[in-house]
Amino acid sequence: MKVVKHIKIKSGMQVKELVESMSDAGFGAGKIARASEIMKKMFEDKECKVFFGVAGAMVPAGMKEIIIDMLDNADVFVTTGANLTHDLVEALGNNHYLADSKLSNEDLDDNKLNKQGIDRIYNVFMKNEVYPELENFFEKNFDEIKKCTNIKELLWKIGELVPENEKGKNSILKKCYEKKIPIFCPALADSGIGLMIWGRKAAGREITIDAFDDMKEIIDIAWTCKKSGVIYIGGGTPKNFIQQSLQFSKGASYGIQITTDRPEPGGSSGAPLKEGISWGKMKSDAEFVDVFCDATIALPLIYASVK
Amino acid sequence: MKVVKHIKIKSGMQVKELVESMSDAGFGAGKIARASEIMKKMFEDKECKVFFGVAGAMVPAGMKEIIIDMLDNADVFVTTGANLTHDLVEALGNNHYLADSKLSNEDLDDNKLNKQGIDRIYNVFMKNEVYPELENFFEKNFDEIKKCTNIKELLWKIGELVPENEKGKNSILKKCYEKKIPIFCPALADSGIGLMIWGRKAAGREITIDAFDDMKEIIDIAWTCKKSGVIYIGGGTPKNFIQQSLQFSKGASYGIQITTDRPEPGGSSGAPLKEGISWGKMKSDAEFVDVFCDATIALPLIYASVK
Amino acid sequence: MKVVKHIKIKSGMQVKELVESMSDAGFGAGKIARASEIMKKMFEDKECKVFFGVAGAMVPAGMKEIIIDMLDNADVFVTTGANLTHDLVEALGNNHYLADSKLSNEDLDDNKLNKQGIDRIYNVFMKNEVYPELENFFEKNFDEIKKCTNIKELLWKIGELVPENEKGKNSILKKCYEKKIPIFCPALADSGIGLMIWGRKAAGREITIDAFDDMKEIIDIAWTCKKSGVIYIGGGTPKNFIQQSLQFSKGASYGIQITTDRPEPGGSSGAPLKEGISWGKMKSDAEFVDVFCDATIALPLIYASVK
Amino acid sequence: MKVVKHIKIKSGMQVKELVESMSDAGFGAGKIARASEIMKKMFEDKECKVFFGVAGAMVPAGMKEIIIDMLDNADVFVTTGANLTHDLVEALGNNHYLADSKLSNEDLDDNKLNKQGIDRIYNVFMKNEVYPELENFFEKNFDEIKKCTNIKELLWKIGELVPENEKGKNSILKKCYEKKIPIFCPALADSGIGLMIWGRKAAGREITIDAFDDMKEIIDIAWTCKKSGVIYIGGGTPKNFIQQSLQFSKGASYGIQITTDRPEPGGSSGAPLKEGISWGKMKSDAEFVDVFCDATIALPLIYASVK
Repeated sequence: MKVVKHIKIKSGMQVKELVESMSDAGFGAGKIARASEIMKKMFEDKECKVFFGVAGAMVPAGMKEIIIDMLDNADVFVTTGANLTHDLVEALGNNHYLADSKLSNEDLDDNKLNKQGIDRIYNVFMKNEVYPELENFFEKNFDEIKKCTNIKELLWKIGELVPENEKGKNSILKKCYEKKIPIFCPALADSGIGLMIWGRKAAGREITIDAFDDMKEIIDIAWTCKKSGVIYIGGGTPKNFIQQSLQFSKGASYGIQITTDRPEPGGSSGAPLKEGISWGKMKSDAEFVDVFCDATIALPLIYASVK
Repeated sequence: MKVVKHIKIKSGMQVKELVESMSDAGFGAGKIARASEIMKKMFEDKECKVFFGVAGAMVPAGMKEIIIDMLDNADVFVTTGANLTHDLVEALGNNHYLADSKLSNEDLDDNKLNKQGIDRIYNVFMKNEVYPELENFFEKNFDEIKKCTNIKELLWKIGELVPENEKGKNSILKKCYEKKIPIFCPALADSGIGLMIWGRKAAGREITIDAFDDMKEIIDIAWTCKKSGVIYIGGGTPKNFIQQSLQFSKGASYGIQITTDRPEPGGSSGAPLKEGISWGKMKSDAEFVDVFCDATIALPLIYASVK
Repeated sequence: MKVVKHIKIKSGMQVKELVESMSDAGFGAGKIARASEIMKKMFEDKECKVFFGVAGAMVPAGMKEIIIDMLDNADVFVTTGANLTHDLVEALGNNHYLADSKLSNEDLDDNKLNKQGIDRIYNVFMKNEVYPELENFFEKNFDEIKKCTNIKELLWKIGELVPENEKGKNSILKKCYEKKIPIFCPALADSGIGLMIWGRKAAGREITIDAFDDMKEIIDIAWTCKKSGVIYIGGGTPKNFIQQSLQFSKGASYGIQITTDRPEPGGSSGAPLKEGISWGKMKSDAEFVDVFCDATIALPLIYASVK
Repeated sequence: MKVVKHIKIKSGMQVKELVESMSDAGFGAGKIARASEIMKKMFEDKECKVFFGVAGAMVPAGMKEIIIDMLDNADVFVTTGANLTHDLVEALGNNHYLADSKLSNEDLDDNKLNKQGIDRIYNVFMKNEVYPELENFFEKNFDEIKKCTNIKELLWKIGELVPENEKGKNSILKKCYEKKIPIFCPALADSGIGLMIWGRKAAGREITIDAFDDMKEIIDIAWTCKKSGVIYIGGGTPKNFIQQSLQFSKGASYGIQITTDRPEPGGSSGAPLKEGISWGKMKSDAEFVDVFCDATIALPLIYASVK
């Protein structure tokens, strides 16, 4: 039992100092500090393979650079089709936009946005005009794309095809391709990229991407690694797909989960990491922490304390 | 503005009466009543195609019969691999189990469960011994299964192969197969069924299930239907996959969403239905309601008031 | 470990049957059934004093009749000034109103409501015109009211003074007065009733209500009772004030808590009942359950299954 | 509509820089930045009276120094009896303690803690042995304390009596006394300090603290101030008591609310600030933001960006 020491704010304080001072505080503050410690250990442990899962719509929210940075420490990356589609949208030269911060969210008029051709993701906007550009990209490159046979190959191929210009270089897909980071997205059909593939198929073009083929790779990594660690941003399919693979591992030694989902309704996204011990996905003596926080707040804070 | 009338509980009260009396109450109670009204309208509207999305782990929680019942009113069904795997586990003769209700959930010892070969899903247990039976099922039937080329076909095929005995007949997969209800599961790789397919592939058997092929069917239904309605239990891929398809529709005319996820972190699961108006997924004059409640409480209540 | 049995909905089903069938289900459904069992036991246990705490704004939401009914089984009642003010507002002949259920909550225009003299409580409205009537009531009766010296006396006095007509008879305050149910409200200053007392004092009238005096009574009840049980609707001061008193008891033997507050930020409202064991507020072998649900949904359901 | 710019983490980054970069991001990150902007404006606006409300148990969690610091910018302070009791406990020389961060919270054994004389507040501990010291303090100083006639006087008096040593000087109560910051706590009876007063009264000592008397002062400040701003940490009685007073003001011009409570169940703690516009508590053109976050994470982050 260590004594609670009160956080003392100093002018010009570094994030590192703030998070360090949180380690003597309770509730969520202490968990941020704990996540920072675990992330440091996980990244420094040379034997540890890091499985990084990112759900939700972190890219439109402004978390792309942090994810790209963190990929330097990741051995496996699993994400939603949404994150990858928004990444591609930006790689092709488009932007996301912020609602006026003076408006409370409840004041946003979805009917008006619809008429303006704007799609809303909480307080972030995307213009419908991004779709024709996505279409062009897939149409233009389809002869290359259609050679792929599983989802990881397809995603690496898209990363390869993304333009080498300033926007394109700064992309999750490009990074995964260039650094050969295994990237998985089991529900890719459920995304804008999925719609692009459907569009080609609907137009009579042929492509067959096996839904199960790249499971072999992620399970192999889990099976063969000496140690593993997990970082889950927001649950969903990315978390569950990693957890499933870890059933074939020795159980993760490190774990960080950032989510605001409740455990009570029994979904995988809200389940505490501890539950994974019963399944053998997490070691019983693993170092892990569940951070209950909006990831757009917690992740920059934790990562800035580690970098 | 109608007057709040206080709910008056009578001994022997029917669920229908209770939910009706909730229509004069505020907060969540009023929303349960509103969901009941909308479900009734949606089911009675002959022009309306009902898209039913069920996330999470509703089957192990005891919601299977309600889902099977509701499928009589559904034109499209989208769910997680988890729900389908747990459905298959039961169809093959196994059970799920409840933790002792006298234990608070925090007292469950995951390490001990792990040693006993028990997997925990909040306060529900499944024995590891279900896996060899799943293996047998897939091994025995693989020559049939391997003919499938997309996920819907695969799921109908599994439904067809499920034994015709008492346990097997009472299955979501069997029902979808028999009633020819289009069933989609974009992240099927992320589930026990996915593991079974991987297992066969790892053993050198051949099967190719296209990840994008059955998108055509759900988008066709969305594109061609006069009117549509959505029922979302818990968000996730099932909700998002339906929402995506509805971008190609006139926009849903009815909507019910039951979730406990927060909107603020921007994920699709927690997004209010209203947000879909900006995307054209929901009509601006649609009748819809967001019910903030554990679905295992709200769904039986709402459905019992409608049946 | 008992087997999960799936809830089967029948047409015309009684609430009692539905809740009973939930006892074989997991997640929130099982907790509703558990709360029902515990409530029955608590009400039937002749040795048990029931401490009933109701936070929030349950009266404007339409829960007044259920609370009045449940008071027949309560030995101590603690609530917010808000609930009592709204109860008095109705006892004096006024109503609360519901926002149009077709509007999503985000569409309510608070600026417009303000100009119309309407105060909003989520999706429930109250007209500003209730205040002059409250003023009249306190002005007219002040010679009686000013004789009170503690909060419980004051609340019983108000209950006594509430008109004997149809509206007035149907009041929490009247019921507590008539049945001599000890009623506590430590933060009464923080409410419309508090404002009425302030108004008289500001006008030079004299009244002194001791803030601590009636603690003696609730602590005496806790101290002397053989057994105790708690029912908490929504946490807040009502829960905390009862919990505090129970530190002087043998610890509660039964407990039901219905709240949607999170435990992680450390507040009393979101703390699981289990935490009370460390403080001696709850017996280590008590029968208790935390129900994560909007109380306007869970309470009618649970109470209808018990009555 | 401004473009989303992705947060870029630099080594050695200051909190100020991080929060500034959040202003170009969406979801919670953008709200942290918005809260920082509003806090700066509110503190710099010489005409603005700042009403600061702190609920929950922020003191045991390690937030005491930040609160003491922020009091330099506060014109009115409202808090829970819990925060003040924990403040006094520390001022008298005791500590709070942290649970082992390697334990997940679910593993804490409340029964064992109870036998060890340790009270749990989520992951923070307090020893029962603090109570005799509180008793001594009140017993020793009762002749001074009993002269007080309202809650604010009582709290200032306690602040005056707190020892002038190192521990005592670093206290919220001392600070409010010394700087003559009006401090209110409508539910003081619902706290350890309340228990101490009850203890003296039970022992036959006399003291009368009027429950409504200091309402005059907070309403006067609200009534007479040119402009007002509110900062709410966690809702509860502190928020509601300030909001109530603001009904007598021109409506707040600035607002920051940090809470994880849901709006749907209709409680004051979870109500968005926007709702206050209908009541006239908030100006329709006020600058305000609702931050959905554990306050022990959000408050240090926001305050460090402002200081």
